[in-house]
Amino acid sequence: MQKPSIPKGTRDFSPVEMAKRNYIFNTIRDVYHLYGFQQIETPAMENLSTLMGKYGDEGDKLLFKILNSGDSLAGITDEELLERNPLKFAARVCEKGLRYDLTVPFARFVVQHRNELSFPFKRYQIQPVWRADRPQKGRYREFYQCDGDVVGSDSLLNEVELIQIMDEVYQRFGIRVSIKMNNRKILSGIAEIIGEADKIVDITVAIDKLDKIGLENVNAELRSKELSEEAIAKLQPIIQLSGTNREKIAVLKEVLAGSETGLKGVAELEFIFDRVDLLTVKAELELDLTLARGLNYYTGAIFEVKALDVQIGSITGGGRYDNLTGVFGMDGVSGVGISFGADRIFDVLNQLELYPEDSLLTTQLMFVNFGEKEEAYLLPLVASVRAAGIRTEIYPEPVKMKKQMGYADAKKIPFVALVGESEMTEGKINLKNMITGEQKPVTVQELIEAFK
Amino acid sequence: MQKPSIPKGTRDFSPVEMAKRNYIFNTIRDVYHLYGFQQIETPAMENLSTLMGKYGDEGDKLLFKILNSGDSLAGITDEELLERNPLKFAARVCEKGLRYDLTVPFARFVVQHRNELSFPFKRYQIQPVWRADRPQKGRYREFYQCDGDVVGSDSLLNEVELIQIMDEVYQRFGIRVSIKMNNRKILSGIAEIIGEADKIVDITVAIDKLDKIGLENVNAELRSKELSEEAIAKLQPIIQLSGTNREKIAVLKEVLAGSETGLKGVAELEFIFDRVDLLTVKAELELDLTLARGLNYYTGAIFEVKALDVQIGSITGGGRYDNLTGVFGMDGVSGVGISFGADRIFDVLNQLELYPEDSLLTTQLMFVNFGEKEEAYLLPLVASVRAAGIRTEIYPEPVKMKKQMGYADAKKIPFVALVGESEMTEGKINLKNMITGEQKPVTVQELIEAFK
Repeated sequence: MQKPSIPKGTRDFSPVEMAKRNYIFNTIRDVYHLYGFQQIETPAMENLSTLMGKYGDEGDKLLFKILNSGDSLAGITDEELLERNPLKFAARVCEKGLRYDLTVPFARFVVQHRNELSFPFKRYQIQPVWRADRPQKGRYREFYQCDGDVVGSDSLLNEVELIQIMDEVYQRFGIRVSIKMNNRKILSGIAEIIGEADKIVDITVAIDKLDKIGLENVNAELRSKELSEEAIAKLQPIIQLSGTNREKIAVLKEVLAGSETGLKGVAELEFIFDRVDLLTVKAELELDLTLARGLNYYTGAIFEVKALDVQIGSITGGGRYDNLTGVFGMDGVSGVGISFGADRIFDVLNQLELYPEDSLLTTQLMFVNFGEKEEAYLLPLVASVRAAGIRTEIYPEPVKMKKQMGYADAKKIPFVALVGESEMTEGKINLKNMITGEQKPVTVQELIEAFK
Repeated sequence: MQKPSIPKGTRDFSPVEMAKRNYIFNTIRDVYHLYGFQQIETPAMENLSTLMGKYGDEGDKLLFKILNSGDSLAGITDEELLERNPLKFAARVCEKGLRYDLTVPFARFVVQHRNELSFPFKRYQIQPVWRADRPQKGRYREFYQCDGDVVGSDSLLNEVELIQIMDEVYQRFGIRVSIKMNNRKILSGIAEIIGEADKIVDITVAIDKLDKIGLENVNAELRSKELSEEAIAKLQPIIQLSGTNREKIAVLKEVLAGSETGLKGVAELEFIFDRVDLLTVKAELELDLTLARGLNYYTGAIFEVKALDVQIGSITGGGRYDNLTGVFGMDGVSGVGISFGADRIFDVLNQLELYPEDSLLTTQLMFVNFGEKEEAYLLPLVASVRAAGIRTEIYPEPVKMKKQMGYADAKKIPFVALVGESEMTEGKINLKNMITGEQKPVTVQELIEAFK
C-alpha cells in the first residue's frame, strides 16, 4: 500500500493552521465590511475561453486545465492526435480550467451580472487560485487571494479608502507596515519627457539599485540600456529623488512640467496625500517611483505594502486599472483594487508571534469521563454549560485518566472538570486549571460565571 | 465578442447569496466549535491514486481530472493514443483530480498526519466538492459540504453528540426537523433471520412504500423480488413496525432474538435513545428501518434529517463506519460523522424566510457626497463612525442626489446621513431613516449611540 500524499505545491491545513488562517481571513473580512464591501464567490472552474489569453503566453501554460468528462477524444482526428502539440491538444480535450486569479473571474462576473449590480460596486472575494508554477519555498500551486475592488467609479476617494483599509487591517494585526505608492501616469510622464517610452522598466529597475550600487553605477546601467546622455541627464533629479513625499512631489512637478500625463499623475498622488493627511493613518506612506508592478495593467495609482519588521516580499498590492471589463465587451468600467497575500501575512504573524491568544483557543473546557454512571449524570450538565456558550467536550470513553489528560494537553484545553462519586453527591464540579495546576470545587453556576 | 458565461452546473454567488451562505456556514461552524470540533482544510486537487476506486465505477467517471501540465502527451505511444480508450487515456494524461467528497480526503489526511493528531480526533471541514454529474435542478457540479466526524473512538457518546449538534444547528436556524435513525446491524440482523443477506435493499425499498401502496402490495413486491413465503412471513412484524421508538425496539428485540448482530444494533440504538432522553433535544427522533443510506459503507448508526415544513430530500445525513482509513493502510480506526447539505438548507431557509435580518445587513450607514469641501470635512468624521464599529460608506462622487439615494436603496442601506453647508456650520448630521423616511439632525455622538 502506497503512503498517501498530496500533489506537490498543495497543502493540508491542520486545526492550528486553520485557526490562524481564519483569524487572518476574518480580520480582513471585518475591515472590508466596515467599508461597505460585499462578498462574492465565483466557481473554481471557468471556461478556458474566459481565462486564455488574459495572463500572457506563460500564464496560458500555467493554467490547470480540466479534461472534458465523457469521451474527451471524441471529434479529434487521428492526425490531430499524432501532431502532439501540447497546447493545441489541451485546447481540444479541455473546455474548463481552474481560476488563476480573482481578477479575471471578477471582470467576467461584472459583465455577466451587469444588470443586477448597482455601481459603484464594492466587492471582496476570498478564494483559492491555482497555478501550475514550479513549487518552491513560499510559492504554492494552490493559494488564497483576498481581493477588494471598487468598480464603476473614477473617484480618488476609492484610493483613499483602500489606503485606510490596508492601514486598518495591519493595525488590527499589529504589523508595522509601509505603504508604498506610485502612479502609472508619472512613469508615463517620465518616459515622455526623456523620449524613451519603452525603457520605463529598465529605468525603474536601475533606480531601485541606487542604495546598493550608487549613482555612478546606476547611470552606467542606464547607458548600457542605450539611454541617451540627454535622457540620463534629465533623469538625474528623478534618480536622486529624496526627502518627504511633499518634497518629492515638488521636484516631480518641475521635472514633469512638459508632460500633461505626468502632471496628472502627480496631481492624483497629491490629492490622495492631502486626503490621507485629514485622517489618522498609522502606516508610513511613501512615494516610491521604483514601484512598477502590473505595468501593462495599471493606469493610475499603484500600491504595495511592505512589513517593516520582517524580511519578506510585498504583503499587499494593487492599483487602478481603466478597463477591467473591456476584454469581455463592456467598456468604460474603471476600477481600483488591492489584494492581501494571506500566505505571507501568515508567515509574518508567525515570525512576530502576533496571533491573539483567543484566536487559537478551541475547546475551553473538558469533562473527564469516569464511567457510565458519571457520563449519564454529566450529559445534561454539559449541555447547560454549552448553552451558556462555553465550548465544551466530554471525553467519549472512560479510559485511563492519563490518556484523557493527555488529550486535553495536546488540544491545549485550558480547563478540565472532574466529576466523580463524591462530586456527584455534593453537586460540585472539581475545576482544574491546566496551566497553574490549581484545582477547586465549584457549582455549575460558578463554573459558568468563571468563563465570562 | 462572446457573452461571458460559466461552466454548466457551476454558480456565481451574489452579495446577498453570500450573506445567506455565510450565515449558514457560520451557524454550523459555531455549533461544531461548541462541541470541540476543529477545522481542517485539504487541497482541491488530490492525486488520482487517492481518489480512484473509492466511489465505484460510476464515481471514477464522475471525477474531474486535471490534465498534466507541460507536455501531457510525453511518454505515450502512438498506439496508446489511437486506442481511444477514454478512461485509460485519462489515466495517462492526468495525475490529479478534484475532490469528489470530503470523506476520502479526510481519510487520506488522517493517515498522512497520524503522528501529529491526537485521537479521538474531532474535525469539521467546510469546502466545495466537484462531480461531473449531469446538472439538473438542485444538483450542481460544484457544491459545498459541511462534514463533521469523530475518528478513533467507538463510544456511542459520539453518536449522541452528533444528534445534539444536528438538533442545535436546526434550532438555531429555526427549522423544525425530524432526525431519522437506523442501524446497519439491525438491517444485517433482519437479513440474517430471513436468510436473504443480499435482499436488504429490496426489503427497505418495499417497506418504504407501505404508506403509499398498502401491506398487500408490499408483500407482492417482496414476492416479485423472489423472497420466500417463509421470509415474507417473518418480515410481517418488521413491515408493520409502528408506535413509539420504545415500542419499535421491543418488537425488534423479539424478531431479532436469533441474531447476535441484530440485537447488538438494537442495543446500540437503545443506548442512544436512553442518553438522548437525558437531554432536551427538540428535534423529533424516529427509528426508521427504511433508512439504508451508504449501506456498503456504514457499519452502525445511520442518520438522516428531514425538514418538517418543506418538501425536500434529506438535509443532513451520516453514520458510523468501522474502517475509514483501511484503504490507505491504517486499520482499526472507527469513526462516525455527519454532513450538512448547505444547498438544501439554503433552499429551506429561503422558502420559510428564516434568515435573521441582521444576517443580511451589509452597510449600516451611507454619507451622501455633496462636493469636494463636504467630502474633506466628512473624511475624519466618517473615520470616527467606523472606529465605533459602524459599517459606513461615503458615496465616492458628488453626483446627483437621486443617484446616490438609489445606490443606498439598491444596497438596502437602512440609514443615510446628509451633511451640507448648514450642517457643517452647526456641527450636525442630518440622519435619514430610509424605511420610515424620518429625518433628524444629530451630533456624531448621538449618531454613534443610535447604532448601539
